[in-house]
Amino acid sequence: MAPMSDAGSAAKIRLFVEHPLGAGQTVPLSREQAHYLFGVMRLTVGDFVLLFDGLNGEWRARVADAGKRAGALVCEARTRPLQVPPDLWLCFAPIKKARTDFIVEKAAEMGAARICPVQTDFTNAERIRRDRLQAHAVEAAEQCGGTYVPEVSELQRLGAVLDTWPEGRRLMFCDEALAGEGRALGDAPRGPWAILIGPEGGFSEAERARLRALPFAHPVSLGPRVLRADTAAVAALTVWQQALGDWA
Amino acid sequence: MAPMSDAGSAAKIRLFVEHPLGAGQTVPLSREQAHYLFGVMRLTVGDFVLLFDGLNGEWRARVADAGKRAGALVCEARTRPLQVPPDLWLCFAPIKKARTDFIVEKAAEMGAARICPVQTDFTNAERIRRDRLQAHAVEAAEQCGGTYVPEVSELQRLGAVLDTWPEGRRLMFCDEALAGEGRALGDAPRGPWAILIGPEGGFSEAERARLRALPFAHPVSLGPRVLRADTAAVAALTVWQQALGDWA
Repeated sequence: MAPMSDAGSAAKIRLFVEHPLGAGQTVPLSREQAHYLFGVMRLTVGDFVLLFDGLNGEWRARVADAGKRAGALVCEARTRPLQVPPDLWLCFAPIKKARTDFIVEKAAEMGAARICPVQTDFTNAERIRRDRLQAHAVEAAEQCGGTYVPEVSELQRLGAVLDTWPEGRRLMFCDEALAGEGRALGDAPRGPWAILIGPEGGFSEAERARLRALPFAHPVSLGPRVLRADTAAVAALTVWQQALGDWA
Repeated sequence: MAPMSDAGSAAKIRLFVEHPLGAGQTVPLSREQAHYLFGVMRLTVGDFVLLFDGLNGEWRARVADAGKRAGALVCEARTRPLQVPPDLWLCFAPIKKARTDFIVEKAAEMGAARICPVQTDFTNAERIRRDRLQAHAVEAAEQCGGTYVPEVSELQRLGAVLDTWPEGRRLMFCDEALAGEGRALGDAPRGPWAILIGPEGGFSEAERARLRALPFAHPVSLGPRVLRADTAAVAALTVWQQALGDWA
């Protein structure tokens, strides 16, 4: 829940709601949302906000009822259509809290469809707070004008992810050990993809051997420098979006 | 000053020093460095660290003298040559503290040669702590195995930067208002370049008009989504490094 800065006009409030939006639709507010809109942002009956539900685009909604702990909005007009990202998953090994939060935020901003934390041999994190990471993805979409929120999966072992890999989904595999020997993505087929970013300590030899042998894996180099995992995530999303996504 | 994680071996300490390195060279330590190496990391005489000075590559150095407030290292062998980045400046409008720190860190990691904070019409920051930002660039190089540290310039007005623009340097100009109408960089000439990232509120109309009219400016789109300034910085560095830098 956050105002979007927009120079030259009053700040716009954009809010993700888990309620289907449509013309004339009444949207009940959670206690937190009511507190934010009426307590923090001081909106009153008749004021407007922008809503999105991840499915039906962005709607201008009017405050119909403003209470301390509850409230309701009424959708008036659709302001933007749903912008669905390409069918791209971002798989990454969770790292320190702030940088994991950052990866989730950036994946939502850059247009990943799904965010999959994976536990590798050198991943320290034994568990994640999925709900907290999901909230970061929501906030990134709210702040950046997104109309779609990628789902954050539960943490899974890399081995299990690869054992149940969906047919037809390709894997862009970024590993600093590949520097200079990665393939270009330019000629790779479009369709469902996933990006895999290794942990700070890199992949283990066993993981690397398995990844290299996968018929659906495309090793890609992110240049001659060692990048932190969060930097590598944004760089990899850029490389993929430019070559195969919706940036072209 | 930070240990570099390196799975499978003991943590390596990498330290930037402002003292020329060479075979047999003795390197005096500052009070902070001595405290870090001997107080925090518990090194003693005879232990090794990796040093770089931004000019002569990376050297393995042995602790020759270890005191509480001072000490000395002796360079033994060069472990890596200097890796000079391409002649690329990253110009950006400072934003909130944490995200400004992040942009500087990422520019150092991704291989910018110089980091130039610029004040635009919609930049809130009136001043920056140049020394603190420079320390972030040093730390990023220490952590990511860099041998070069980009210099962080003092904050300058965008207008003044453009008034004194060096001849022959091209400008990759990223603005969300350009979404979909930017040019591809693929055919642009190599040589000295700068990237300019706008502030969160975008450029003013006057700035945009001036930037578009510059003969050395190349507008580049970073896709159909609104990106935060820190995300845009990493994405723009990736686009440039892939097309014209040393990632190819």
